[in-house]
Amino acid sequence: MPRNQQILLDNRPQGEATASNFKLVATDTPPLQDGQVLVRHHYLSLDPYMRGRMNDSKSYAASQPLGEVMIGGTVGEVVESRHPKYAVGDKVVGMGGWQEYSVVDGNTPGLLRKVDTTHVPLSHYLGAVGMPGVTAWYGLVKIIDPKPGQTMVVSAATGAVGSAFAALAKARGCRVVGIAGGPEKCRYATEELGFDACIDHREHPDLKSMARALKEACPDGIDGFFENVGGHILDAVLLRANAFARIALCGMIAGYDGQPLPLQNPALILINRVKIEGFIVSEHMEVWPEALKELGTLVATGKLRPRESVAQGLAAAPEAFLGMLKGKNFGKQLVKLV
Amino acid sequence: MPRNQQILLDNRPQGEATASNFKLVATDTPPLQDGQVLVRHHYLSLDPYMRGRMNDSKSYAASQPLGEVMIGGTVGEVVESRHPKYAVGDKVVGMGGWQEYSVVDGNTPGLLRKVDTTHVPLSHYLGAVGMPGVTAWYGLVKIIDPKPGQTMVVSAATGAVGSAFAALAKARGCRVVGIAGGPEKCRYATEELGFDACIDHREHPDLKSMARALKEACPDGIDGFFENVGGHILDAVLLRANAFARIALCGMIAGYDGQPLPLQNPALILINRVKIEGFIVSEHMEVWPEALKELGTLVATGKLRPRESVAQGLAAAPEAFLGMLKGKNFGKQLVKLV
Repeated sequence: MPRNQQILLDNRPQGEATASNFKLVATDTPPLQDGQVLVRHHYLSLDPYMRGRMNDSKSYAASQPLGEVMIGGTVGEVVESRHPKYAVGDKVVGMGGWQEYSVVDGNTPGLLRKVDTTHVPLSHYLGAVGMPGVTAWYGLVKIIDPKPGQTMVVSAATGAVGSAFAALAKARGCRVVGIAGGPEKCRYATEELGFDACIDHREHPDLKSMARALKEACPDGIDGFFENVGGHILDAVLLRANAFARIALCGMIAGYDGQPLPLQNPALILINRVKIEGFIVSEHMEVWPEALKELGTLVATGKLRPRESVAQGLAAAPEAFLGMLKGKNFGKQLVKLV
Repeated sequence: MPRNQQILLDNRPQGEATASNFKLVATDTPPLQDGQVLVRHHYLSLDPYMRGRMNDSKSYAASQPLGEVMIGGTVGEVVESRHPKYAVGDKVVGMGGWQEYSVVDGNTPGLLRKVDTTHVPLSHYLGAVGMPGVTAWYGLVKIIDPKPGQTMVVSAATGAVGSAFAALAKARGCRVVGIAGGPEKCRYATEELGFDACIDHREHPDLKSMARALKEACPDGIDGFFENVGGHILDAVLLRANAFARIALCGMIAGYDGQPLPLQNPALILINRVKIEGFIVSEHMEVWPEALKELGTLVATGKLRPRESVAQGLAAAPEAFLGMLKGKNFGKQLVKLV
């Protein structure tokens, strides 16, 4: 029975989330029952959606219960198995949560997925070839439906979703413009991730300035926008949107901490005949196989080289998570547990 | 050469539109050239979109030039023809503008359409069986795509668009809830137009109160919303929207006069996975035949009995138009010219 460190949600944030909302505990992993599998997590994924779960208010998913292990995607290795489908040594991806081990029922479909690490590093199954990658794919392919030559914009451009979005949009012949925080990220976006241009939102903290920067970076207007952030960026994009632009609304991280951030001029949705659609990728499992196949090929062929920020050890997870919410990470934020 | 009274846009509104923005003039109709038709207008249509055209700012359509006849839909009768397709006495619908006569080139497709007044009164071709009806049809059928048993909500419920929306949604097995101004309109909505419930927005002038009223009128939540108004109604609908709700954005009349009206909590679009789509029906001419056929049948069979507010004489058009913007009309606003 290996000892299992876990991080629980101890109390809910009042405004900004803090490390004191979490609590580190240790327990023994329980003995396996028939059909169960013990997975040792190699990496834990940290994602913006988790901040929404910490609140008690209505959201698209049940809020995270207090006193329970924080929800989260994990990749790891089967270390003990009482299920014929899983053997010790199998690499698996699942929703193990913020802990070092998880006991998983091998008979429940969808809880565990075996992955091949020949061409794709294990950690990427939490990023480019996992939920964030499929998120970018769904927003681009199913909502934005880009045409060659059109201009696509994505916020949080160097993150796991943004970098996958860029590779997928470039593969479809689009001009791709990113929005990221700071000159280093912007340089990385254009030099390594294939963005045609990148706007530093720290240099454009208000609507007017951001709209001007978008006009310069998108001389033919904006046809598709993948929104990870919310706030004045969305307002500015609407000002520069072409007729029949499509906006995939994936994250509103800017408003997670407190008062809702209004959209300043919704009449622009009508004026520009824009479609805005909110979505959650876990509700569209039917696209995952097709999306993962394309994303895996992009990674295996070097066309998508996602960057990772890796924190060491479970105890580092809360600070890494809070830093990510402030944009301190650079690329996909992970916690290495082994 | 009959004498032709015309109303021109004389100057642009500063804030609220006023009668002094318009100017009444009279000219002689010019002699017809080959291929032209002289139409005497029986009715002029007054529609909210005209307020947008009066501004100089960017909108979906070119702004109305100063010193020219105000744009507008008209129905009338051919009184002189130098085109083989049109005979004196033909009833026609077109975009004749705010004037008593218009000279139309019979060879330009789409400018004039002959209509049959056997089962449908001529004036209805400007309302239920015209642009407003097709607007309701497009938003409901192409954007909202309703399923039987779902709940549909429409603002400006007793207007030309709202009343057509109700008949079309009832025909598809939906619960239909209207929002209108005042007890008389609400009574008419439920007793005559087939609405299952109607909310008086004057009794619910703020977000909280409107959200409460919607909760009561839509016990199963809102699946589709046809937006003619904007402002706090849209905010309240988003609070009561079911997962995967669809919003057809057709008008934002509440914000026409001045500062943009913000959307208070756009994160709800994500939380409820809502689709919002702005549209202009004149960009979707391909649906008109199918839509007009259904609308004509609903009127001919008495399932859609649209109400009209009729002002008398061209000189009455400005005041009737300004009144409509304030909701003083009851049903489709027309000006009778003959």
